[in-house]
Amino acid sequence: MAPELGPDRERPVIGFLTDFGLDGAAAICRGVMLSIARDAQIVDISHTVAKYAIRDGAYLLATAVPWLPVGVHVAVVDPGVGTDRRSIALLTQRGDALIGPDNGLLLPAAHRLGGVTDARVIENRSWLLPATSSTFHGRDIFAPAAAHLATGASFGDVGPEVDSATLVELAAATAIVSDGHLATQVVYVDSFGNLRLAGGVAELVAALGPVEPGTRLQVTLQDSTSEALVVARWSRTFGETPAGELLAYEDSSGALAIAESSGSATRRLGAGSGARIGIRRA
Amino acid sequence: MAPELGPDRERPVIGFLTDFGLDGAAAICRGVMLSIARDAQIVDISHTVAKYAIRDGAYLLATAVPWLPVGVHVAVVDPGVGTDRRSIALLTQRGDALIGPDNGLLLPAAHRLGGVTDARVIENRSWLLPATSSTFHGRDIFAPAAAHLATGASFGDVGPEVDSATLVELAAATAIVSDGHLATQVVYVDSFGNLRLAGGVAELVAALGPVEPGTRLQVTLQDSTSEALVVARWSRTFGETPAGELLAYEDSSGALAIAESSGSATRRLGAGSGARIGIRRA
Amino acid sequence: MAPELGPDRERPVIGFLTDFGLDGAAAICRGVMLSIARDAQIVDISHTVAKYAIRDGAYLLATAVPWLPVGVHVAVVDPGVGTDRRSIALLTQRGDALIGPDNGLLLPAAHRLGGVTDARVIENRSWLLPATSSTFHGRDIFAPAAAHLATGASFGDVGPEVDSATLVELAAATAIVSDGHLATQVVYVDSFGNLRLAGGVAELVAALGPVEPGTRLQVTLQDSTSEALVVARWSRTFGETPAGELLAYEDSSGALAIAESSGSATRRLGAGSGARIGIRRA
Repeated sequence: MAPELGPDRERPVIGFLTDFGLDGAAAICRGVMLSIARDAQIVDISHTVAKYAIRDGAYLLATAVPWLPVGVHVAVVDPGVGTDRRSIALLTQRGDALIGPDNGLLLPAAHRLGGVTDARVIENRSWLLPATSSTFHGRDIFAPAAAHLATGASFGDVGPEVDSATLVELAAATAIVSDGHLATQVVYVDSFGNLRLAGGVAELVAALGPVEPGTRLQVTLQDSTSEALVVARWSRTFGETPAGELLAYEDSSGALAIAESSGSATRRLGAGSGARIGIRRA
Repeated sequence: MAPELGPDRERPVIGFLTDFGLDGAAAICRGVMLSIARDAQIVDISHTVAKYAIRDGAYLLATAVPWLPVGVHVAVVDPGVGTDRRSIALLTQRGDALIGPDNGLLLPAAHRLGGVTDARVIENRSWLLPATSSTFHGRDIFAPAAAHLATGASFGDVGPEVDSATLVELAAATAIVSDGHLATQVVYVDSFGNLRLAGGVAELVAALGPVEPGTRLQVTLQDSTSEALVVARWSRTFGETPAGELLAYEDSSGALAIAESSGSATRRLGAGSGARIGIRRA
Repeated sequence: MAPELGPDRERPVIGFLTDFGLDGAAAICRGVMLSIARDAQIVDISHTVAKYAIRDGAYLLATAVPWLPVGVHVAVVDPGVGTDRRSIALLTQRGDALIGPDNGLLLPAAHRLGGVTDARVIENRSWLLPATSSTFHGRDIFAPAAAHLATGASFGDVGPEVDSATLVELAAATAIVSDGHLATQVVYVDSFGNLRLAGGVAELVAALGPVEPGTRLQVTLQDSTSEALVVARWSRTFGETPAGELLAYEDSSGALAIAESSGSATRRLGAGSGARIGIRRA
């Protein structure tokens, strides 16, 4: 017997993230969901994920869902739509269901929700739209599957179980601690231009020893096209750093980040997602 | 006696599309609607329609509303606001009401919903805001009219009936079939940069005979400033085409489209909405 | 005893404005609010306020809230997050509560809602998230405080009262009337590129005497980097002015504005927020 979803089938929450942009495709999916689950509260997480950027989508989904009520969360960043990549639903320890393509997009969020307790391929034909296109599974498969689960369908009705060890997983970005040096990576650039990094304060301290507000850090940035070496001060918050200066800080999800106070670190430093970052004391 | 709107007056759906952008004008209309119809579920279709682009708005509205629950749908792309263009409400065969300016924006959506069964000019003064501005009919006329209809008002109370033959209609883009050649047009460029064309697979096959995945097509593109000749392969989906290659495909609304796999066809080809497209076998 | 909020605690409206952009931070706050106030109707006013632009945020909030149902409205444009700037809640004459940082963002909206009747510092620890970050008070302080008020908590439970004379207030932009000349200022550039100015028709008429549709006005624009002198015609609406021509008009909030018909005045004139504007008869 399949484990079941969390509470609130009366006004179920459906989290929703895509790279569809703002010109109507997300609204079409929303229409499909509301046609099935009329009382759903659809919470748009983001629809402006960079096109085809599975890694960005996975980061944003994993960052957001722990703050949403337990619910069904649909995510579609899906360059492989219409190929043989699987359509999956993951039940999590917290009681959420995650719906989307099996391309690595969902697993980081599942880990943040306590891990996968049941994984299934979406194959319940009676749930899906009668004609399934080969370019818009958001509308034809993921939205209706999410809405059916939101209205109280059993997770076991999604389709056959799959071994969660076979799910596609993105290579995790990691922070490597060595004596006096932390090697990390930009995992996401937020809308303020702040560089969000792999690893947290624990890793920084393990590498450099204790840091305090004002501690000067030497930061190297390197990607395929550029290199930079800058100094950033360890800070508790933006407002304590003069406008235009760089700071390193613990972001609101507990990870390391680099910002320019009242500015944009990504514009200032020319470094984006995937850039390698080295940090030592200045 | 006027025919009536479709079901669900308890939690009525209001679809909402504008070119207002994201800085507050749409929220003002939403506030007006919720002040009148407190339990309405407002579904934002898009508010980033290109400014004054009636044709883009009409395309997006017509593409989205068939997927929304039966409801009231307000659309405002309205360069003629405050002139003598009429404010109209259209009742459709499916039971939806469409609200907006009489400038061609609504009719394609009405056709997709089975056609217009009743057309009226919005003149019910008791519905409108006390002071009507000459630059923001979205707030003063369209939003309150939609909300009153959503709460259960009779369609006949909108105002006097108009002959639907007098409604402003945009010239339809068409695909012209000749022996071995399809002449068509870009009707919309979506947020992925895919070129959505007039006509469907039936027209393509009528012109070129049967096409199969992999069939090579020679595509000419021409607009006021540029010309291009490229080869695209007929494909079922994006993921089957190597990244960076062009494909022609049947889009999720059943129309022809041209895309660059994992890229942007509009950027690659320099062709946008309105460009003339010719397709023959390569 | 503290005065209380307005009606509708069953489906409370929460207006929501930030400079967080579209990539997930607003959704995190929405998740926090819905976790506390499950039946709240959250009305997004804007999340694309220019980064750190308190003045723009204050303008948009003040322009929007009068059109929203009475409710709790949260606004976060907060370059000083984590410093000693206060977190405040303002009860207004109309019965709304405004929640956000004490940096001038909220007061213009409060004035539009009849003025502040009670002002408090948000200090109710039982309302806030257990761990308060120093970079994301939207999530940790403002969203939960708003949600608790929305569910019916007493305004007095927010925290200690503060003297509203001590609240941070932005310097107001004003229109200065002299004989034959109005000196004013761009207070906001909307998404159409229209320049919204300080002052209304009354000030214009006081300076220049009566104006009529077609009256030619000489407009000077000056900011730190550019100057321009143009002619604009006083118009009632956009559609009466030929495309590409400049018009001056009374905008939908009753203020003066300058637009290019079917175009963008800010692009045409190179003038943005804060630019000084002079108007006389041409």
